[in-house]
Amino acid sequence: MTVEIRGGTDNRPGAHDPRRLAWAYLSKVVQGPCPALSRLVDEVGPEEAARAVRERDLSELLGEKTVARAHVDTAAHDLDLVTGMSGRLITPDDDEWPQWRLLGFDTLSASREDGAPFALWVLGSRSLTELTERAISVVGTRAASGYGEHVTAELAGDLAVDGWTIVSGAAFGIDGAAHRAALGVGGLTVAVLACGVDRAYPAGHARLLRQIAQNGAVISEYPPGTTPAKYRFLARNRLVASLSDGVVVVEAGWRSGARNTASWARKLGRPVMAVPGPVTSVSSTGCNRMIREGEARLVANAVDVVDEAGPIGLRAGVDGDVERDLDAVRALDGLSGDALLVYEALPALGASGVRELSEASGIAVHKVRAVLPMLEMEGFVDSGDTGWSRQR
Amino acid sequence: MTVEIRGGTDNRPGAHDPRRLAWAYLSKVVQGPCPALSRLVDEVGPEEAARAVRERDLSELLGEKTVARAHVDTAAHDLDLVTGMSGRLITPDDDEWPQWRLLGFDTLSASREDGAPFALWVLGSRSLTELTERAISVVGTRAASGYGEHVTAELAGDLAVDGWTIVSGAAFGIDGAAHRAALGVGGLTVAVLACGVDRAYPAGHARLLRQIAQNGAVISEYPPGTTPAKYRFLARNRLVASLSDGVVVVEAGWRSGARNTASWARKLGRPVMAVPGPVTSVSSTGCNRMIREGEARLVANAVDVVDEAGPIGLRAGVDGDVERDLDAVRALDGLSGDALLVYEALPALGASGVRELSEASGIAVHKVRAVLPMLEMEGFVDSGDTGWSRQR
Repeated sequence: MTVEIRGGTDNRPGAHDPRRLAWAYLSKVVQGPCPALSRLVDEVGPEEAARAVRERDLSELLGEKTVARAHVDTAAHDLDLVTGMSGRLITPDDDEWPQWRLLGFDTLSASREDGAPFALWVLGSRSLTELTERAISVVGTRAASGYGEHVTAELAGDLAVDGWTIVSGAAFGIDGAAHRAALGVGGLTVAVLACGVDRAYPAGHARLLRQIAQNGAVISEYPPGTTPAKYRFLARNRLVASLSDGVVVVEAGWRSGARNTASWARKLGRPVMAVPGPVTSVSSTGCNRMIREGEARLVANAVDVVDEAGPIGLRAGVDGDVERDLDAVRALDGLSGDALLVYEALPALGASGVRELSEASGIAVHKVRAVLPMLEMEGFVDSGDTGWSRQR
Repeated sequence: MTVEIRGGTDNRPGAHDPRRLAWAYLSKVVQGPCPALSRLVDEVGPEEAARAVRERDLSELLGEKTVARAHVDTAAHDLDLVTGMSGRLITPDDDEWPQWRLLGFDTLSASREDGAPFALWVLGSRSLTELTERAISVVGTRAASGYGEHVTAELAGDLAVDGWTIVSGAAFGIDGAAHRAALGVGGLTVAVLACGVDRAYPAGHARLLRQIAQNGAVISEYPPGTTPAKYRFLARNRLVASLSDGVVVVEAGWRSGARNTASWARKLGRPVMAVPGPVTSVSSTGCNRMIREGEARLVANAVDVVDEAGPIGLRAGVDGDVERDLDAVRALDGLSGDALLVYEALPALGASGVRELSEASGIAVHKVRAVLPMLEMEGFVDSGDTGWSRQR
């Protein structure tokens, strides 16, 4: 008997929505991004796409891409497994599918194997939309120096205190330090894995990964049971880049994977930042070089990062502008987009709540929430017991 | 009795050319740059200008600028003094006046007090043209860290070995380390002072200044006896910038005078470079910030510096070009200006001497000398016992 459930995940083992079962089956078949399959699902829905894959009723391209595992259907088992870990499968069907985070992939060639994820397996109770609303990726070498670990702790900690989610890859070194810094200040953090979310990789970070799942999310586009592989790390890096407002490389050797993440951020139109370090330290070679070659902008602290990646249109203008006119930056002319609309929705006298501001400005509540602390930091608004008000 | 000498300095005490005496007198009167006086000398010659100053036969502007010391004439004494120190006064009359180094000032407002120098007092036997032919200014904070001293020694030492003259301000910290590095490898170095060349400032660098005079030059636009003053340090910085092909700031706090030198280099169209450092080090704050704000390009070593400031048109193209095509850079298409002409003047088979190449290419000997080692470093030419040849 098929139980028809719409609009949500049924968490009872074995009682999965057939549509979600189809997504899970297909995710296992392609194991990673597959723009061709995403397009087919878009057109005919996951169930019909799953039937077509099972029955080999496919274009030549999709036939090739799915032939190896079309006969493997562990969908119910996989969904049971993640449900048992308080996890879930998120697909483009879901409200929390981070659609706006993934728009960047549209600008890349649709034939790329490394397009938008097909689906996301997630451990953690928070909505992915909420988690990635204001997020910075902090990445770097596994062979971090004391300097790198220190700077990561300061920078990621300050960003997390300021309400930014820290996204990283859970590797040893800089990645781990970034997650820990966020956890240490009670902030949010997201780990993106190159293996199934049921696998702790690296094993030495098993406890860290459990903490991350409890305070944020552990994410993978690979189904449970998938083992890490080199090409999956590269694909993972593109997700790390896409799920944030910008990528900071704290320390990286010349051949560090962090440079791959930075390269993805560039392709996706996200700001790429790097922390400089001693020219005598091999752990900083990659960062210094990226800055030198104009591949990354130098950042020294969290304020620099927010200046670069923050939601308010306050970025420094043309490179080479010698002195920035701070007064001009502070002027309302400096505001743009959502920030300006939210500011203008504030009453001339008195205070407003977030929901009121959302209604008055037409900006979604979660974006209003993201913009207000920035406006406060920049000195445009004040927060008080009765809500938000214009700064006098 | 007046001894008429033309076209050179007479080194006998008391036997000075009246034209040079006039220059020395005027240099003492204005003590530093004075574009208005330089223009008058250009028009009427130094002797007539000196008469006009003595007799107060001047425009209102020049009247004001010269009134305080018009009655002081220590010219013969000053010339005797520097002659006694194996020094000399260099003026626009002299072949070794670094005219091409000072062209940048033409682009600045002619009314600036900080224009081209009026004259230069110099200790050291080498021609100033030769010394500044291929020169890099290496400057930085007096409060240098161990890291800063180390990087300065490596970078300035490597540049000096490669034939670059190291220009700096003889201050404690980075400046001193830069001069010492050049001396240490038997290279050339030039110290530009904010006081008379007869004064050792700082006193702790008296011995270093003597070594610099023996192996390069100690230069000042102020006459003997002038004491250092804050505004003279700022004016000195512009000379440090102008006498080189580019300025490297190795370590600088946010308010370091090195940033003033860098700002002069920018105004004069010279490349400004900075060595990054730990974001946790106050001694690197200025460098990191200059790089961040696009005021300086990051350099990590001598190769980066030559890439930026070298005579061959081999600079990296547009910022943001992700990977540089090294093959393209090596191709002859990468050559431009003097380098291309010198390369083309080389015989298809066999070798040529510098003078032959100068005649064949139409490029001055000293420029041919500057270009050849660069061509060799870039793999275009070889040097051998019989001269320079194209690399096979």
